[in-house]
Amino acid sequence: MWFCAARSGELANPGQFKKVQIGRESVLVVRGRDGALRAFLNVCRHRGSALCAEPEGQVKRNLQCPYHAWTYALDGKLVAAPNLASLKEPSGEGIDRYEYGLVSVALTEWLGYAWVCLADDPPSFVDEVVGEVTHRLGDPTAIDHYGIENLTVGHRVVYDVAANWKLIVENFMECYHCATIHPELTEVLPEFAKGLAAQYYVGHGAEFSSEVSGFTIDGSAGFDNLPGVTEEQERRYYAVTVKPVVFINLVPDHIIFHRMYPLAPDRTIVECDWLYSPDIVEHGRDVSRSVELFHRVNEQDFEACERTQPAMSSRAYRDGGVLVPSEHHIAEFHEWVVSRVGARSRPGGGIGAQSQPG
Amino acid sequence: MWFCAARSGELANPGQFKKVQIGRESVLVVRGRDGALRAFLNVCRHRGSALCAEPEGQVKRNLQCPYHAWTYALDGKLVAAPNLASLKEPSGEGIDRYEYGLVSVALTEWLGYAWVCLADDPPSFVDEVVGEVTHRLGDPTAIDHYGIENLTVGHRVVYDVAANWKLIVENFMECYHCATIHPELTEVLPEFAKGLAAQYYVGHGAEFSSEVSGFTIDGSAGFDNLPGVTEEQERRYYAVTVKPVVFINLVPDHIIFHRMYPLAPDRTIVECDWLYSPDIVEHGRDVSRSVELFHRVNEQDFEACERTQPAMSSRAYRDGGVLVPSEHHIAEFHEWVVSRVGARSRPGGGIGAQSQPG
Amino acid sequence: MWFCAARSGELANPGQFKKVQIGRESVLVVRGRDGALRAFLNVCRHRGSALCAEPEGQVKRNLQCPYHAWTYALDGKLVAAPNLASLKEPSGEGIDRYEYGLVSVALTEWLGYAWVCLADDPPSFVDEVVGEVTHRLGDPTAIDHYGIENLTVGHRVVYDVAANWKLIVENFMECYHCATIHPELTEVLPEFAKGLAAQYYVGHGAEFSSEVSGFTIDGSAGFDNLPGVTEEQERRYYAVTVKPVVFINLVPDHIIFHRMYPLAPDRTIVECDWLYSPDIVEHGRDVSRSVELFHRVNEQDFEACERTQPAMSSRAYRDGGVLVPSEHHIAEFHEWVVSRVGARSRPGGGIGAQSQPG
Repeated sequence: MWFCAARSGELANPGQFKKVQIGRESVLVVRGRDGALRAFLNVCRHRGSALCAEPEGQVKRNLQCPYHAWTYALDGKLVAAPNLASLKEPSGEGIDRYEYGLVSVALTEWLGYAWVCLADDPPSFVDEVVGEVTHRLGDPTAIDHYGIENLTVGHRVVYDVAANWKLIVENFMECYHCATIHPELTEVLPEFAKGLAAQYYVGHGAEFSSEVSGFTIDGSAGFDNLPGVTEEQERRYYAVTVKPVVFINLVPDHIIFHRMYPLAPDRTIVECDWLYSPDIVEHGRDVSRSVELFHRVNEQDFEACERTQPAMSSRAYRDGGVLVPSEHHIAEFHEWVVSRVGARSRPGGGIGAQSQPG
Repeated sequence: MWFCAARSGELANPGQFKKVQIGRESVLVVRGRDGALRAFLNVCRHRGSALCAEPEGQVKRNLQCPYHAWTYALDGKLVAAPNLASLKEPSGEGIDRYEYGLVSVALTEWLGYAWVCLADDPPSFVDEVVGEVTHRLGDPTAIDHYGIENLTVGHRVVYDVAANWKLIVENFMECYHCATIHPELTEVLPEFAKGLAAQYYVGHGAEFSSEVSGFTIDGSAGFDNLPGVTEEQERRYYAVTVKPVVFINLVPDHIIFHRMYPLAPDRTIVECDWLYSPDIVEHGRDVSRSVELFHRVNEQDFEACERTQPAMSSRAYRDGGVLVPSEHHIAEFHEWVVSRVGARSRPGGGIGAQSQPG
Repeated sequence: MWFCAARSGELANPGQFKKVQIGRESVLVVRGRDGALRAFLNVCRHRGSALCAEPEGQVKRNLQCPYHAWTYALDGKLVAAPNLASLKEPSGEGIDRYEYGLVSVALTEWLGYAWVCLADDPPSFVDEVVGEVTHRLGDPTAIDHYGIENLTVGHRVVYDVAANWKLIVENFMECYHCATIHPELTEVLPEFAKGLAAQYYVGHGAEFSSEVSGFTIDGSAGFDNLPGVTEEQERRYYAVTVKPVVFINLVPDHIIFHRMYPLAPDRTIVECDWLYSPDIVEHGRDVSRSVELFHRVNEQDFEACERTQPAMSSRAYRDGGVLVPSEHHIAEFHEWVVSRVGARSRPGGGIGAQSQPG
């Protein structure tokens, strides 16, 4: 599956790198001298030492292992090692410097992010990632109007959540909880108070209250709309889940982009970026009112997920919980999880399966 | 099996609750509007969120889940939920509000405590709990003379012990260690210095030293005897193990009541209540001299248990330790444990099996 | 296998003891009244309490369990217990006081250390330990010239390393990393900068640089050579790995002696002794310049091992790393590990297997 590993624009210069933990693997995303982003396992081919210990940084020309000085070009090729000339294959030939180079990890750029996949044979990015967004928004061009690849990170918060990533997905997919725990959000998006998830209908976006000017903590006006935003998108909030671990939130003047890093069955790191037009960030304009709105939503959501985590081992939850009508689309997520792990039993049940949300 | 979860008198008012961790389950004990105590799993039926996060408290009328506002009466019935009317069974009928109510846990009150059992089909409380006390004291009415259900908690200490609960039971069952680690207790109960457990004979209580006036740290007089205490019980200490996790200590003027909560194979929380006549507690009389005596005994015992815990994984203890004659009744506890877990090998051995304690 | 547990000279007096954790077992090494060192499991035969809680100390005459006062002579015999006379075998005979004594652990003294083995049937010490040293140095008498059993600990450092002990062994066995991480050591031993391990040739010792006077951090002169050191050993450094967990470093005027205690798959305690002629220690002469050299080497090595540990679970290391020609002798260690654990696959690969180091 495809994970979202880094904002491309933050690795602008050759030799800039970011280290990302994906499951048990430490992955390096590196900008090459040719301008391309590449990803490698952060493991020296020789004795396994981590090449980079820091979370991010800039190397001059090569990646050098600090243990025995094996040295790799930014494209992964082994370019130097002490006594390298003496290294020979059993046939007596010199070694293949790519075969003894860093282990590559598949990488694709989209929406200004580097997405990586650890699989030897990665699934189609277009089907799995782009297709998921299209499926949600109904229109393959809908997301293009926001020009996300050209935006700049105006703010980032990293949350350490004591809950399984699947609980965070379920929470994001439904809005039945909005009336209870999101007072600020329902002020801006009154239909959420009725419990109808933005993601319930294909293409649906939640409309701003007529009493607010923008998607901000106090309803005050935000920034100018992003250039390509259509009339239909002008006063609406769209939420997209890109399984397994990305959420994209679209409003006319900024984007809220979540990436999850599951660390343990009951612990998930969530990195959340607020993306704005570059000129807003460059001119140091105040983004705090739009940041504050979704930061509160995040904190409210993650507290609810943490409160739910302990019940996962209770027999009261042995057969899963209950899906009310406005949550029935979560069942599709359950089926997707089951299909991926090949589980024998189906998590979650539902009531009122034949009824429609009111 | 039956666990002792809460002192009934501490949940006097409708809506008062206490949260107790029993194995993997979080259990709520709640006083209903009808005055009855009930127990439920602390898990919302909808998505599994914990209903109560605080260890104890008071709700006004209902238990409401903070995630999606599902609301339960104090008897567990689902009384409200957003869009509840839209929830229907596949048959089109409205849902059964008890079936979607909180998951009940069996609860019985005895000796002023709420005892709960997680089993779907709980064993007989009279056989398992009351019977154990009768079996130890020899007389079904012996415990009634203390009127424990009418007493008040004068002091409580919670101990966090780095040892398995079964080591704590074994420790409580024998007094071969008393001469070594309990100098204060053997001052008051001289026969304990000879290593004879109070629990060795049915009905036996250890006699106070002729040199002490009461069951206190300095041998000074305690309070007036509890009203029903018989002449035989007047200057004696009785100890009762109520398997798996309760100890009851009876002296003429107060009761020391232990409840264990096993948290891990090598960690047990022990809550110890000192119970007195209500007027003693109400008038704020000084209970420190009687509290101090058994508090020291507790600390001495739990230190010994912690010191023994590491050997449980040593091959020196592969076949269990040795039971000396005055400890042979512990073998019954071992057999009981084996019968419950269906183990293949019998823990603990014994020497001098045919001899009698001297 | 044989573990090195204690410096004999530190347990000079009857009743002195040291507690050592070997895997899951706590072992006591004790000096007897007859002057002999013995080792026992630190577990009372009665109920399993640890006899000694402190890491080392001195008892007066016996080892007494603090729980029930079972008392053992320094040779392990049960000499006293409350009501011991009442303890009888089923046959009615009194109990065998050695059978109910402490559980013995095999112990041999060599090089002034107490080596212990937990096996019921220990392998030959001469074959396994002495033989390993002879195999490395090529001459059974080579180590005797240093008179290690007569030396005194001048300094000790205990390192807590977040790496598997096998990574520490591999690191110690090769010097391909020396040029990269050991600038001070390669100043003293220039051939190490070429990556040739001291242990690569049987009997080989690395020669001191003609520009240094002694094995010290600044190349200044050390102390007088140890009395028996031969002309050939005079300006050379020899390193010996005594599998599984001991390293011995020989230089003309002192010995650096490492002992590892694996605590977890990713954690190892390393105790390192610097041994000198007794008169040097007695006169309080300054050993800091020789200590500092290998202390830095230790810190550099253990940091490299810690940096390598995480890759052990990476698929980049699934088939092991790569052994360059100067590391091929590590393959023997891998084979030895595999032969001991009966693993199905051989860790580590190699390239240039037929080539010789240049």
